[in-house]
Amino acid sequence: MSNERIVLYAAKLCPFAHRVEIALKESGINYERCEIDFFTKPDWYLEKVNPAGKVPVIAYGGPKTPHDDPSPESIKIAESLVLVEFVNDLSGGKLLPTDPVLRAKARLFIETVSPKVISAFFGPCLRGDDPLMVVQAIELLQNLLPEGDGFAVGDWSIADAAVVTLLARTELAFENDYGSYDEGMGKKAWDEVMNDARFERFRRYYAAVKARKSFQESFARDFIFNYFQSKYPGLRAQRIAAKASQ
Amino acid sequence: MSNERIVLYAAKLCPFAHRVEIALKESGINYERCEIDFFTKPDWYLEKVNPAGKVPVIAYGGPKTPHDDPSPESIKIAESLVLVEFVNDLSGGKLLPTDPVLRAKARLFIETVSPKVISAFFGPCLRGDDPLMVVQAIELLQNLLPEGDGFAVGDWSIADAAVVTLLARTELAFENDYGSYDEGMGKKAWDEVMNDARFERFRRYYAAVKARKSFQESFARDFIFNYFQSKYPGLRAQRIAAKASQ
Ligand SMILES: [Ca+2]
Repeated sequence: MSNERIVLYAAKLCPFAHRVEIALKESGINYERCEIDFFTKPDWYLEKVNPAGKVPVIAYGGPKTPHDDPSPESIKIAESLVLVEFVNDLSGGKLLPTDPVLRAKARLFIETVSPKVISAFFGPCLRGDDPLMVVQAIELLQNLLPEGDGFAVGDWSIADAAVVTLLARTELAFENDYGSYDEGMGKKAWDEVMNDARFERFRRYYAAVKARKSFQESFARDFIFNYFQSKYPGLRAQRIAAKASQ
Repeated sequence: MSNERIVLYAAKLCPFAHRVEIALKESGINYERCEIDFFTKPDWYLEKVNPAGKVPVIAYGGPKTPHDDPSPESIKIAESLVLVEFVNDLSGGKLLPTDPVLRAKARLFIETVSPKVISAFFGPCLRGDDPLMVVQAIELLQNLLPEGDGFAVGDWSIADAAVVTLLARTELAFENDYGSYDEGMGKKAWDEVMNDARFERFRRYYAAVKARKSFQESFARDFIFNYFQSKYPGLRAQRIAAKASQ
Protein backbone atom coordinates (compact mmCIF):
# COMPACT_ATOMS: atom_id res chain seq x y z
CA MET A 1 0.00 0.00 0.00
CA SER A 2 1.12 3.49 -0.82
CA ASN A 3 1.93 6.09 1.83
CA GLU A 4 2.29 8.92 -0.64
CA ARG A 5 -0.26 11.68 -0.81
CA ILE A 6 -2.88 11.19 -3.52
CA VAL A 7 -5.00 14.05 -4.83
CA LEU A 8 -7.64 13.14 -7.41
CA TYR A 9 -8.66 16.02 -9.65
CA ALA A 10 -12.12 15.12 -10.88
CA ALA A 11 -15.46 16.55 -12.03
CA LYS A 12 -18.80 15.13 -10.93
CA LEU A 13 -20.10 15.10 -14.49
CA CYS A 14 -17.16 13.21 -15.90
CA PRO A 15 -17.60 9.44 -16.29
CA PHE A 16 -13.85 9.02 -16.77
CA ALA A 17 -12.87 10.72 -13.52
CA HIS A 18 -15.62 8.72 -11.82
CA ARG A 19 -13.92 5.45 -12.83
CA VAL A 20 -10.83 6.46 -10.90
CA GLU A 21 -12.76 7.57 -7.84
CA ILE A 22 -14.51 4.19 -7.71
CA ALA A 23 -11.16 2.41 -8.02
CA LEU A 24 -9.72 4.52 -5.19
CA LYS A 25 -12.69 3.75 -2.95
CA GLU A 26 -12.43 0.03 -3.70
CA SER A 27 -8.68 0.08 -3.00
CA GLY A 28 -9.08 1.46 0.51
CA ILE A 29 -6.21 3.88 -0.18
CA ASN A 30 -6.53 7.32 1.40
CA TYR A 31 -7.01 10.11 -1.09
CA GLU A 32 -8.16 13.68 -1.33
CA ARG A 33 -10.53 14.87 -4.00
CA CYS A 34 -10.57 18.22 -5.74
CA GLU A 35 -13.61 19.12 -7.86
CA ILE A 36 -12.72 20.91 -11.10
CA ASP A 37 -15.34 22.87 -13.00
CA PHE A 38 -15.78 20.72 -16.09
CA PHE A 39 -16.52 23.65 -18.39
CA THR A 40 -14.28 26.37 -16.98
CA LYS A 41 -10.98 24.89 -15.94
CA PRO A 42 -9.13 27.26 -13.61
CA ASP A 43 -5.81 28.68 -14.78
CA TRP A 44 -3.87 27.00 -11.97
CA TYR A 45 -5.18 23.64 -13.21
CA LEU A 46 -3.89 24.21 -16.72
CA GLU A 47 -0.60 25.59 -15.44
CA LYS A 48 0.18 23.22 -12.61
CA VAL A 49 -1.80 20.02 -13.13
CA ASN A 50 -2.75 19.30 -16.72
CA PRO A 51 -1.99 21.64 -19.64
CA ALA A 52 -4.40 19.53 -21.73
CA GLY A 53 -7.11 20.58 -19.29
CA LYS A 54 -8.70 17.15 -18.96
CA VAL A 55 -9.81 15.37 -15.82
CA PRO A 56 -9.07 12.97 -14.20
CA VAL A 57 -5.54 13.54 -12.97
CA ILE A 58 -3.90 12.01 -9.92
CA ALA A 59 -1.20 14.11 -8.28
CA TYR A 60 0.97 11.55 -6.51
CA GLY A 61 3.46 12.28 -3.76
CA GLY A 62 5.12 15.56 -2.85
CA PRO A 63 4.49 17.87 0.11
CA LYS A 64 1.04 18.78 1.42
CA THR A 65 0.14 22.00 -0.40
CA PRO A 66 -3.37 23.32 -1.14
CA HIS A 67 -5.13 21.52 -4.00
CA ASP A 68 -5.03 24.64 -6.14
CA ASP A 69 -1.29 24.99 -5.61
CA PRO A 70 0.07 21.50 -6.22
CA SER A 71 3.77 20.95 -5.73
CA PRO A 72 5.98 20.47 -8.77
CA GLU A 73 7.37 17.52 -6.78
CA SER A 74 4.14 15.57 -7.06
CA ILE A 75 3.80 13.42 -10.17
CA LYS A 76 0.76 14.23 -12.29
CA ILE A 77 -0.76 11.26 -14.10
CA ALA A 78 -3.68 11.50 -16.55
CA GLU A 79 -5.91 9.06 -18.51
CA SER A 80 -8.60 7.15 -16.65
CA LEU A 81 -7.64 3.67 -17.84
CA VAL A 82 -4.01 4.26 -16.96
CA LEU A 83 -5.15 5.53 -13.56
CA VAL A 84 -7.37 2.57 -12.66
CA GLU A 85 -4.40 0.29 -13.37
CA PHE A 86 -2.22 2.64 -11.30
CA VAL A 87 -4.63 2.47 -8.36
CA ASN A 88 -4.68 -1.31 -8.72
CA ASP A 89 -0.88 -1.40 -8.63
CA LEU A 90 -0.77 0.92 -5.60
CA SER A 91 -3.23 -1.38 -3.81
CA GLY A 92 -1.00 -4.38 -4.37
CA GLY A 93 -3.28 -5.79 -7.05
CA LYS A 94 -6.60 -5.89 -5.17
CA LEU A 95 -8.63 -4.58 -8.10
CA LEU A 96 -7.79 -7.29 -10.63
CA PRO A 97 -7.78 -11.09 -10.34
CA THR A 98 -4.39 -12.79 -9.83
CA ASP A 99 -4.93 -15.34 -12.61
CA PRO A 100 -3.30 -13.96 -15.81
CA VAL A 101 -6.15 -15.27 -17.96
CA LEU A 102 -8.76 -13.49 -15.87
CA ARG A 103 -6.63 -10.34 -15.88
CA ALA A 104 -6.53 -10.54 -19.67
CA LYS A 105 -10.30 -11.00 -19.73
CA ALA A 106 -10.78 -7.93 -17.55
CA ARG A 107 -8.62 -5.86 -19.90
CA LEU A 108 -10.36 -7.29 -22.96
CA PHE A 109 -13.71 -6.37 -21.39
CA ILE A 110 -12.49 -2.80 -20.98
CA GLU A 111 -10.93 -2.63 -24.45
CA THR A 112 -14.05 -4.05 -26.11
CA VAL A 113 -16.98 -2.65 -24.12
CA SER A 114 -15.65 0.74 -23.15
CA PRO A 115 -15.66 2.34 -26.64
CA LYS A 116 -19.21 1.05 -27.22
CA VAL A 117 -20.69 2.44 -24.01
CA ILE A 118 -18.85 5.72 -24.56
CA SER A 119 -20.39 6.07 -28.03
CA ALA A 120 -23.82 4.93 -26.83
CA PHE A 121 -23.88 7.70 -24.23
CA PHE A 122 -22.22 10.65 -25.96
CA GLY A 123 -23.48 9.99 -29.49
CA PRO A 124 -27.21 10.23 -28.69
CA CYS A 125 -26.90 12.84 -25.93
CA LEU A 126 -24.59 15.27 -27.72
CA ARG A 127 -25.03 14.57 -31.42
CA GLY A 128 -28.55 13.17 -31.70
CA ASP A 129 -27.52 9.62 -32.68
CA ASP A 130 -30.17 6.93 -32.22
CA PRO A 131 -30.33 5.92 -28.54
CA LEU A 132 -31.00 2.35 -29.67
CA MET A 133 -27.24 2.00 -30.14
CA VAL A 134 -27.11 1.33 -26.42
CA VAL A 135 -28.86 -1.97 -27.11
CA GLN A 136 -25.93 -3.20 -29.20
CA ALA A 137 -23.45 -2.07 -26.56
CA ILE A 138 -25.36 -4.00 -23.92
CA GLU A 139 -25.60 -7.11 -26.07
CA LEU A 140 -21.84 -7.05 -26.47
CA LEU A 141 -21.29 -6.45 -22.76
CA GLN A 142 -23.71 -9.22 -21.76
CA ASN A 143 -22.01 -11.73 -24.07
CA LEU A 144 -18.74 -11.19 -22.20
CA LEU A 145 -20.25 -11.70 -18.72
CA PRO A 146 -19.68 -14.99 -16.96
CA GLU A 147 -22.79 -17.19 -16.98
CA GLY A 148 -24.96 -17.19 -13.90
CA ASP A 149 -23.74 -14.47 -11.61
CA GLY A 150 -20.73 -12.33 -10.95
CA PHE A 151 -19.06 -9.22 -12.23
CA ALA A 152 -17.21 -8.87 -15.56
CA VAL A 153 -14.58 -11.43 -14.55
CA GLY A 154 -16.24 -12.92 -11.45
CA ASP A 155 -15.01 -10.79 -8.55
CA TRP A 156 -15.39 -7.04 -8.84
CA SER A 157 -12.55 -5.46 -10.85
CA ILE A 158 -11.52 -2.29 -12.64
CA ALA A 159 -13.41 -3.67 -15.66
CA ASP A 160 -16.63 -2.94 -13.78
CA ALA A 161 -15.47 0.53 -12.78
CA ALA A 162 -14.73 1.30 -16.43
CA VAL A 163 -18.30 0.71 -17.62
CA VAL A 164 -20.66 1.46 -14.71
CA THR A 165 -19.98 5.20 -14.77
CA LEU A 166 -21.08 5.40 -18.41
CA LEU A 167 -24.07 3.10 -18.00
CA ALA A 168 -25.36 5.10 -15.03
CA ARG A 169 -25.16 8.38 -16.95
CA THR A 170 -26.83 6.78 -19.96
CA GLU A 171 -29.67 5.52 -17.77
CA LEU A 172 -30.12 8.90 -16.12
CA ALA A 173 -30.30 10.62 -19.50
CA PHE A 174 -32.36 8.06 -21.42
CA GLU A 175 -34.95 7.15 -18.77
CA ASN A 176 -35.76 10.87 -18.50
CA ASP A 177 -35.52 11.27 -22.25
CA TYR A 178 -32.80 13.91 -21.88
CA GLY A 179 -30.54 14.16 -24.87
CA SER A 180 -30.13 15.75 -28.27
CA TYR A 181 -31.89 12.78 -29.97
CA ASP A 182 -35.52 12.84 -31.12
CA GLU A 183 -38.15 13.00 -28.41
CA GLY A 184 -39.20 9.68 -26.92
CA MET A 185 -36.26 7.70 -28.32
CA GLY A 186 -34.21 7.68 -25.12
CA LYS A 187 -37.08 6.32 -23.05
CA LYS A 188 -37.82 3.74 -25.72
CA ALA A 189 -34.24 2.46 -25.83
CA TRP A 190 -33.86 2.30 -22.07
CA ASP A 191 -37.24 0.56 -21.75
CA GLU A 192 -35.96 -2.19 -24.02
CA VAL A 193 -32.84 -2.60 -21.89
CA MET A 194 -34.87 -2.73 -18.68
CA ASN A 195 -37.73 -4.94 -19.87
CA ASP A 196 -36.69 -7.18 -22.72
CA ALA A 197 -36.33 -10.77 -21.48
CA ARG A 198 -33.05 -11.22 -23.35
CA PHE A 199 -31.28 -8.67 -21.12
CA GLU A 200 -32.03 -10.41 -17.83
CA ARG A 201 -28.36 -11.29 -17.25
CA PHE A 202 -27.29 -7.73 -17.98
CA ARG A 203 -29.86 -6.34 -15.54
CA ARG A 204 -28.59 -8.52 -12.72
CA TYR A 205 -25.04 -7.40 -13.53
CA TYR A 206 -26.02 -3.75 -13.70
CA ALA A 207 -27.93 -3.90 -10.42
CA ALA A 208 -24.89 -5.47 -8.75
CA VAL A 209 -22.38 -2.86 -10.00
CA LYS A 210 -24.71 -0.03 -9.02
CA ALA A 211 -25.28 -1.52 -5.55
CA ARG A 212 -21.56 -1.43 -4.89
CA LYS A 213 -20.75 0.99 -2.04
CA SER A 214 -17.90 2.56 -4.05
CA PHE A 215 -20.41 3.55 -6.72
CA GLN A 216 -23.15 4.67 -4.32
CA GLU A 217 -20.74 6.97 -2.50
CA SER A 218 -19.30 8.54 -5.63
CA PHE A 219 -22.20 8.98 -8.08
CA ALA A 220 -23.38 12.60 -7.96
CA ARG A 221 -26.82 11.66 -9.26
CA ASP A 222 -28.68 14.89 -8.48
CA PHE A 223 -25.89 17.11 -9.73
CA ILE A 224 -25.73 15.23 -13.01
CA PHE A 225 -29.54 15.08 -13.32
CA ASN A 226 -29.75 18.84 -12.89
CA TYR A 227 -27.12 19.36 -15.53
CA PHE A 228 -28.89 17.08 -18.02
CA GLN A 229 -32.19 18.85 -17.29
CA SER A 230 -30.70 22.27 -17.86
CA LYS A 231 -28.65 21.37 -20.94
CA TYR A 232 -30.24 18.69 -23.10
CA PRO A 233 -33.65 20.18 -23.98
CA GLY A 234 -31.82 23.16 -25.49
CA LEU A 235 -29.40 20.90 -27.35
CA ARG A 236 -32.30 18.96 -28.85
CA ALA A 237 -34.08 22.14 -29.93
CA GLN A 238 -30.86 23.41 -31.51
CA ARG A 239 -30.28 20.20 -33.42
CA ILE A 240 -33.86 20.16 -34.74
CA ALA A 241 -33.65 23.83 -35.75
CA ALA A 242 -30.34 23.24 -37.52
CA LYS A 243 -31.85 20.29 -39.39
CA ALA A 244 -34.95 22.30 -40.39
CA SER A 245 -32.85 25.15 -41.78
CA GLN A 246 -30.74 22.87 -43.98
CA MET B 1 6.28 -18.73 -15.39
CA SER B 2 3.54 -20.45 -17.29
CA ASN B 3 3.71 -24.12 -18.26
CA GLU B 4 0.67 -24.00 -20.48
CA ARG B 5 1.00 -24.29 -24.21
CA ILE B 6 1.04 -20.94 -26.03
CA VAL B 7 0.31 -20.61 -29.73
CA LEU B 8 0.62 -17.14 -31.24
CA TYR B 9 -1.43 -16.63 -34.37
CA ALA B 10 0.30 -13.79 -36.19
CA ALA B 11 1.02 -12.33 -39.63
CA LYS B 12 4.41 -10.99 -40.64
CA LEU B 13 2.89 -7.81 -42.04
CA CYS B 14 0.92 -6.99 -38.92
CA PRO B 15 2.51 -4.49 -36.51
CA PHE B 16 0.01 -5.48 -33.81
CA ALA B 17 0.86 -9.17 -33.89
CA HIS B 18 4.53 -8.20 -33.98
CA ARG B 19 4.16 -6.41 -30.61
CA VAL B 20 3.09 -9.67 -29.01
CA GLU B 21 5.85 -11.69 -30.61
CA ILE B 22 8.44 -9.25 -29.27
CA ALA B 23 6.88 -9.46 -25.79
CA LEU B 24 6.97 -13.26 -25.92
CA LYS B 25 10.64 -13.26 -26.97
CA GLU B 26 11.53 -10.81 -24.19
CA SER B 27 9.64 -12.92 -21.64
CA GLY B 28 11.63 -16.07 -22.34
CA ILE B 29 8.38 -18.07 -22.34
CA ASN B 30 8.18 -20.94 -24.83
CA TYR B 31 5.67 -20.39 -27.58
CA GLU B 32 4.75 -21.66 -31.00
CA ARG B 33 3.95 -19.35 -33.87
CA CYS B 34 1.43 -19.87 -36.63
CA GLU B 35 1.55 -17.53 -39.64
CA ILE B 36 -1.88 -16.49 -40.89
CA ASP B 37 -2.33 -15.06 -44.36
CA PHE B 38 -3.20 -11.46 -43.56
CA PHE B 39 -5.48 -11.03 -46.57
CA THR B 40 -7.09 -14.46 -46.88
CA LYS B 41 -7.83 -15.82 -43.44
CA PRO B 42 -8.43 -19.59 -43.58
CA ASP B 43 -11.87 -20.87 -42.62
CA TRP B 44 -10.52 -22.84 -39.65
CA TYR B 45 -9.12 -19.58 -38.24
CA LEU B 46 -12.49 -17.84 -38.36
CA GLU B 47 -14.28 -20.90 -36.99
CA LYS B 48 -11.89 -22.03 -34.28
CA VAL B 49 -9.68 -19.09 -33.34
CA ASN B 50 -11.15 -15.67 -34.02
CA PRO B 51 -14.54 -15.12 -35.71
CA ALA B 52 -13.53 -11.45 -36.09
CA GLY B 53 -10.66 -12.66 -38.26
CA LYS B 54 -8.03 -10.41 -36.74
CA VAL B 55 -4.51 -11.28 -35.65
CA PRO B 56 -2.91 -11.49 -33.13
CA VAL B 57 -4.52 -14.17 -31.02
CA ILE B 58 -2.89 -16.27 -28.34
CA ALA B 59 -4.36 -19.73 -27.82
CA TYR B 60 -3.48 -20.54 -24.24
CA GLY B 61 -3.50 -24.01 -22.67
CA GLY B 62 -5.32 -27.11 -23.83
CA PRO B 63 -3.93 -30.27 -25.48
CA LYS B 64 -1.30 -30.27 -28.23
CA THR B 65 -3.29 -30.29 -31.47
CA PRO B 66 -2.13 -29.00 -34.87
CA HIS B 67 -2.17 -25.21 -35.19
CA ASP B 68 -4.94 -25.36 -37.75
CA ASP B 69 -7.08 -27.51 -35.45
CA PRO B 70 -6.89 -25.74 -32.09
CA SER B 71 -8.63 -27.38 -29.15
CA PRO B 72 -11.83 -25.81 -27.81
CA GLU B 73 -10.14 -26.26 -24.42
CA SER B 74 -7.50 -23.63 -25.17
CA ILE B 75 -8.45 -20.07 -24.32
CA LYS B 76 -8.30 -17.67 -27.25
CA ILE B 77 -7.31 -14.12 -26.38
CA ALA B 78 -7.21 -11.22 -28.86
CA GLU B 79 -6.10 -7.54 -28.86
CA SER B 80 -2.39 -6.76 -28.96
CA LEU B 81 -2.32 -4.42 -25.95
CA VAL B 82 -4.25 -6.91 -23.84
CA LEU B 83 -1.83 -9.59 -24.99
CA VAL B 84 1.39 -7.73 -24.15
CA GLU B 85 0.02 -7.22 -20.61
CA PHE B 86 -0.96 -10.92 -20.56
CA VAL B 87 2.57 -11.97 -21.55
CA ASN B 88 3.94 -9.65 -18.88
CA ASP B 89 1.66 -11.27 -16.29
CA LEU B 90 2.63 -14.78 -17.44
CA SER B 91 6.30 -13.83 -17.10
CA GLY B 92 5.79 -12.72 -13.50
CA GLY B 93 6.04 -9.06 -14.41
CA LYS B 94 9.39 -9.02 -16.23
CA LEU B 95 8.16 -6.70 -19.00
CA LEU B 96 7.09 -3.74 -16.85
CA PRO B 97 8.88 -1.93 -14.03
CA THR B 98 7.82 -2.82 -10.46
CA ASP B 99 7.36 0.82 -9.40
CA PRO B 100 3.66 1.76 -9.84
CA VAL B 101 4.57 5.24 -11.12
CA LEU B 102 6.83 3.82 -13.82
CA ARG B 103 4.18 1.24 -14.71
CA ALA B 104 1.69 4.10 -15.11
CA LYS B 105 4.20 5.97 -17.27
CA ALA B 106 4.66 2.91 -19.48
CA ARG B 107 0.89 2.62 -19.96
CA LEU B 108 0.57 6.35 -20.56
CA PHE B 109 3.30 6.11 -23.19
CA ILE B 110 1.32 3.37 -24.95
CA GLU B 111 -2.02 5.19 -24.58
CA THR B 112 -0.57 8.47 -25.88
CA VAL B 113 1.98 7.48 -28.52
CA SER B 114 0.38 4.38 -29.97
CA PRO B 115 -2.59 6.09 -31.71
CA LYS B 116 -0.22 8.68 -33.20
CA VAL B 117 2.25 6.20 -34.68
CA ILE B 118 -0.62 4.08 -35.95
CA SER B 119 -2.11 7.08 -37.80
CA ALA B 120 1.27 8.25 -39.04
CA PHE B 121 1.88 4.89 -40.67
CA PHE B 122 -1.52 3.86 -42.01
CA GLY B 123 -2.82 7.33 -42.92
CA PRO B 124 -0.06 8.18 -45.43
CA CYS B 125 0.48 4.64 -46.70
CA LEU B 126 -3.14 3.66 -47.25
CA ARG B 127 -5.03 6.94 -47.63
CA GLY B 128 -2.45 9.37 -48.97
CA ASP B 129 -2.24 11.56 -45.85
CA ASP B 130 0.82 13.77 -45.54
CA PRO B 131 3.77 11.68 -44.32
CA LEU B 132 4.93 14.71 -42.33
CA MET B 133 2.44 13.67 -39.65
CA VAL B 134 5.11 11.26 -38.49
CA VAL B 135 7.11 14.28 -37.33
CA GLN B 136 4.41 15.24 -34.81
CA ALA B 137 4.16 11.67 -33.59
CA ILE B 138 7.89 11.57 -33.03
CA GLU B 139 7.93 14.92 -31.25
CA LEU B 140 5.28 13.60 -28.86
CA LEU B 141 7.14 10.34 -28.35
CA GLN B 142 10.46 12.09 -27.76
CA ASN B 143 8.92 14.42 -25.17
CA LEU B 144 7.91 11.40 -23.11
CA LEU B 145 11.35 9.76 -23.16
CA PRO B 146 13.55 9.99 -20.10
CA GLU B 147 16.37 12.47 -20.57
CA GLY B 148 19.76 11.14 -21.52
CA ASP B 149 19.39 7.48 -22.31
CA GLY B 150 17.05 4.60 -21.78
CA PHE B 151 13.87 3.16 -23.17
CA ALA B 152 10.38 4.65 -22.73
CA VAL B 153 10.48 4.18 -18.95
CA GLY B 154 14.17 3.41 -18.47
CA ASP B 155 14.44 -0.37 -18.74
CA TRP B 156 12.92 -2.03 -21.78
CA SER B 157 9.17 -2.59 -21.39
CA ILE B 158 6.01 -3.40 -23.32
CA ALA B 159 5.77 0.34 -24.05
CA ASP B 160 8.72 -0.08 -26.41
CA ALA B 161 7.21 -3.18 -28.03
CA ALA B 162 4.02 -1.21 -28.69
CA VAL B 163 5.71 1.46 -30.82
CA VAL B 164 8.78 -0.08 -32.46
CA THR B 165 6.76 -2.33 -34.76
CA LEU B 166 4.96 0.68 -36.21
CA LEU B 167 8.04 2.87 -36.43
CA ALA B 168 9.98 0.17 -38.29
CA ARG B 169 7.21 -0.28 -40.86
CA THR B 170 6.93 3.48 -41.26
CA GLU B 171 10.67 3.74 -41.88
CA LEU B 172 10.64 0.91 -44.40
CA ALA B 173 7.79 2.54 -46.31
CA PHE B 174 8.87 6.19 -46.10
CA GLU B 175 12.62 5.81 -46.72
CA ASN B 176 11.76 3.95 -49.94
CA ASP B 177 8.95 6.38 -50.68
CA TYR B 178 6.41 3.55 -50.76
CA GLY B 179 2.89 4.66 -49.92
CA SER B 180 -0.26 6.13 -51.35
CA TYR B 181 0.95 9.69 -50.62
CA ASP B 182 2.42 12.04 -53.24
CA GLU B 183 5.80 11.07 -54.67
CA GLY B 184 8.81 12.19 -52.67
CA MET B 185 6.87 13.05 -49.50
CA GLY B 186 7.73 9.87 -47.62
CA LYS B 187 11.46 10.29 -48.21
CA LYS B 188 11.23 13.94 -47.22
CA ALA B 189 9.46 13.20 -43.93
CA TRP B 190 11.77 10.37 -42.96
CA ASP B 191 14.80 12.50 -43.87
CA GLU B 192 13.65 15.10 -41.36
CA VAL B 193 13.30 12.45 -38.67
CA MET B 194 16.74 11.02 -39.41
CA ASN B 195 18.65 14.28 -39.87
CA ASP B 196 17.06 17.15 -37.97
CA ALA B 197 19.16 18.02 -34.91
CA ARG B 198 16.07 18.24 -32.73
CA PHE B 199 15.37 14.51 -33.08
CA GLU B 200 18.74 13.35 -31.78
CA ARG B 201 17.20 11.85 -28.62
CA PHE B 202 14.56 10.03 -30.63
CA ARG B 203 17.20 8.57 -32.95
CA ARG B 204 19.18 7.14 -30.05
CA TYR B 205 15.98 5.65 -28.68
CA TYR B 206 14.94 4.22 -32.01
CA ALA B 207 18.39 2.69 -32.65
CA ALA B 208 18.24 1.06 -29.21
CA VAL B 209 14.77 -0.49 -29.67
CA LYS B 210 15.70 -1.75 -33.12
CA ALA B 211 18.97 -3.25 -31.85
CA ARG B 212 17.04 -5.35 -29.34
CA LYS B 213 17.41 -9.08 -30.12
CA SER B 214 13.66 -9.63 -29.72
CA PHE B 215 13.04 -7.15 -32.55
CA GLN B 216 15.86 -8.37 -34.78
CA GLU B 217 14.62 -11.94 -34.58
CA SER B 218 10.99 -11.09 -35.28
CA PHE B 219 11.00 -8.33 -37.92
CA ALA B 220 10.29 -9.87 -41.34
CA ARG B 221 11.96 -6.98 -43.14
CA ASP B 222 12.30 -8.50 -46.61
CA PHE B 223 8.80 -9.95 -46.60
CA ILE B 224 7.32 -6.60 -45.62
CA PHE B 225 9.53 -4.70 -48.08
CA ASN B 226 8.39 -6.95 -50.93
CA TYR B 227 4.78 -6.39 -49.98
CA PHE B 228 5.20 -2.60 -49.87
CA GLN B 229 7.01 -2.71 -53.23
CA SER B 230 4.27 -4.76 -54.85
CA LYS B 231 1.34 -2.90 -53.33
CA TYR B 232 2.00 0.80 -52.76
CA PRO B 233 2.94 2.07 -56.23
CA GLY B 234 -0.45 0.80 -57.45
CA LEU B 235 -2.26 2.37 -54.51
CA ARG B 236 -0.64 5.72 -55.24
CA ALA B 237 -1.56 5.54 -58.92
CA GLN B 238 -5.14 4.66 -57.97
CA ARG B 239 -5.43 7.55 -55.55
CA ILE B 240 -4.06 10.04 -58.08
CA ALA B 241 -6.37 8.70 -60.79
CA ALA B 242 -9.38 8.93 -58.45
CA LYS B 243 -8.45 12.51 -57.58
CA ALA B 244 -8.03 13.48 -61.25
CA SER B 245 -11.44 12.05 -62.19
CA GLN B 246 -13.27 13.98 -59.48
CA1 LIG C 1 -6.89 1.72 -25.30
